Amino acid sequence: MSASISGPVGRIARVRAMMEERGYDAVVVRDEANLRWLTGAEGVFDFTGELPHAAFITLDDTYLHTDSRYFNTFEEHLPEGSTWKLDMRVIDIFRWVAERARDSRCRVVAIEDTTELSFYTGLVRSLEDVSIVCSLPQLHGDLRRMRAVKDAEEVELMKKAQAITDAAFQHMLGFIRPGLTEKQLRIELENFMYEHGADGLAFGSIVAAGPNAANPHAIPSDRVVEKGEFVLMDYGARYRDYNSDMTRTVSVGEPSSKMREIYDIVRHTHEECAKAVYAGIDGNEIHELSRKLIGEAGYGAYYGHGLGHGVGIDIHELPNFGRTHNTVAEGSVVTIEPGIYLPGEFGVRLEDYGIVTDKGFEPFTQSPHELQIIDC
Amino acid sequence: MSASISGPVGRIARVRAMMEERGYDAVVVRDEANLRWLTGAEGVFDFTGELPHAAFITLDDTYLHTDSRYFNTFEEHLPEGSTWKLDMRVIDIFRWVAERARDSRCRVVAIEDTTELSFYTGLVRSLEDVSIVCSLPQLHGDLRRMRAVKDAEEVELMKKAQAITDAAFQHMLGFIRPGLTEKQLRIELENFMYEHGADGLAFGSIVAAGPNAANPHAIPSDRVVEKGEFVLMDYGARYRDYNSDMTRTVSVGEPSSKMREIYDIVRHTHEECAKAVYAGIDGNEIHELSRKLIGEAGYGAYYGHGLGHGVGIDIHELPNFGRTHNTVAEGSVVTIEPGIYLPGEFGVRLEDYGIVTDKGFEPFTQSPHELQIIDC
Repeated sequence: MSASISGPVGRIARVRAMMEERGYDAVVVRDEANLRWLTGAEGVFDFTGELPHAAFITLDDTYLHTDSRYFNTFEEHLPEGSTWKLDMRVIDIFRWVAERARDSRCRVVAIEDTTELSFYTGLVRSLEDVSIVCSLPQLHGDLRRMRAVKDAEEVELMKKAQAITDAAFQHMLGFIRPGLTEKQLRIELENFMYEHGADGLAFGSIVAAGPNAANPHAIPSDRVVEKGEFVLMDYGARYRDYNSDMTRTVSVGEPSSKMREIYDIVRHTHEECAKAVYAGIDGNEIHELSRKLIGEAGYGAYYGHGLGHGVGIDIHELPNFGRTHNTVAEGSVVTIEPGIYLPGEFGVRLEDYGIVTDKGFEPFTQSPHELQIIDC
Repeated sequence: MSASISGPVGRIARVRAMMEERGYDAVVVRDEANLRWLTGAEGVFDFTGELPHAAFITLDDTYLHTDSRYFNTFEEHLPEGSTWKLDMRVIDIFRWVAERARDSRCRVVAIEDTTELSFYTGLVRSLEDVSIVCSLPQLHGDLRRMRAVKDAEEVELMKKAQAITDAAFQHMLGFIRPGLTEKQLRIELENFMYEHGADGLAFGSIVAAGPNAANPHAIPSDRVVEKGEFVLMDYGARYRDYNSDMTRTVSVGEPSSKMREIYDIVRHTHEECAKAVYAGIDGNEIHELSRKLIGEAGYGAYYGHGLGHGVGIDIHELPNFGRTHNTVAEGSVVTIEPGIYLPGEFGVRLEDYGIVTDKGFEPFTQSPHELQIIDC
């Protein structure tokens, strides 16, 4: 399914279509990314797991509970014409949901399976307190699956986020030199993004040089970059609550022949996998292709992570190019990021992100795949 | 209870004391901050809600499941002499827990009520699959309550985090000037912390000028700072997984008499509340004191948030100075942060953080309370 009406109105309509199909009277939403998506409220959620918010969506109404700290921000940031009925009473959130169920005469109330266990047990008790019985079917990633398919508004925001990310890479090509530390490079990289329109970071940037890059989740250290090393940068800008995600590995001075060999394998794997993506394919199939290509090149033991993942409001969304089976729907925005990590030596990863259309994978990323060599 | 043995050994002993008291055979831990606290593994967790990890603690053993991406990092970052038995098999995490319960003959297995509902329902099914019956009592913040009491190792890390934060404030006093934007100030502030030892940020820094500071959760914008305005900075460094948290409001040029009046009320409230804190007091009582003081000064309607909160591995921990009742245990590290927010005009907040000892509140924060005025 592609997303026809852009923005929250279309998104709520998609939720209601699911409700009608499954016989849900209401859907309760706690997940902050799901709430951002459904409300369209920009810059309200902090995605830190502090969760004062809940939405209660029926076939006719949309209710939103928050607390006093966020009330004004919601009022300012909800899109024009928004139909959300805001409530900031001081009340336990599960009690509020139980009251909405009672007042709206909803008896089949779906909840996200990612919600905290304490919310579930609190809701069960609160429903007893208000003397009604509801069935509480669990949503197993249904909203996440809907979010995988981006609408036009979302694509615009993500392209903008990637444009900042690409510009930062160009800037870093002129900045990286031997003698700087990983932390110094990280600061320069993140600054550039903030100064060029980023509202935040997609995640704490990975900047790893030499053997540190052999750890796929390296944290920037005080290690000094030396001539003849690879520097791996995995980072992204956040723009109006949407993330970008890119990895480039550059050579500081001339690379060794082994470094070139590994880089070429990773690049070849990336490009073959990108060509193989189409709407409707099983994400596992593309992942297996990457494993096959790197395995045939003799480095299967040095590639332990998934090939890629969806991106959006969350940095890890559906679909996955990984060990699980899942369909890559048209309109998904995904990363492709194969890598080879040689402990004690170096690591290489090459990551683009872009949209899956009926024509295949169309990268938003504009930075080149050719190995960039820093003169020094 | 104060924490006698510092580090993970003492922490696991505290968990086991609770297990014995309550008759738990095992405790399952998923929360990343709880895992960081119990394992002592530094720089492994990213606290983004991606949760491949689980710990299974019995009276005799400590098991830890993770995935291949984190295995090496754990091996490198677990403290010397650590007894954790690592497992990285590819298996659903709830299935792994069910197998541990079966193999360790545990029949009372406590789980955190913050865990995802899907983990709970998966565990119930997996226990059926391995043909055992367990009772699954929920931990309602018990580990969080233990974490509220900091041990000597934690206090050292938090003092170091605050020293970086204080130094950044001194630096900003020489940097802030009319014509710079909130975003530019944020970049300078965060850079300084990274360059002076921070491993990360406690949270995305709040830098808000003029009327923007009237929003307690303001996001830095392109708004230019003007002479005669307050600039509010709420920020902190993360150091070896521990956070600091501080707010200062400075005046760019001479403040108006109303700005001075509000600042003095906030400062007076802060200092009176700090004096009233002692080990064993109800956090709500201190919060109510702050409401009373600001209310008597005539600004009760412009102070909507809690007075303060615990800080540690998470930026929001127990105890709370807020509307709920809870005991402030000796050894807690807390913030005190009253504020007054005048919509369309300006906002003031003054926040220190420090430890609650038998002598009262001892701030780690060294930056002055006097209103700092930027010459311009």
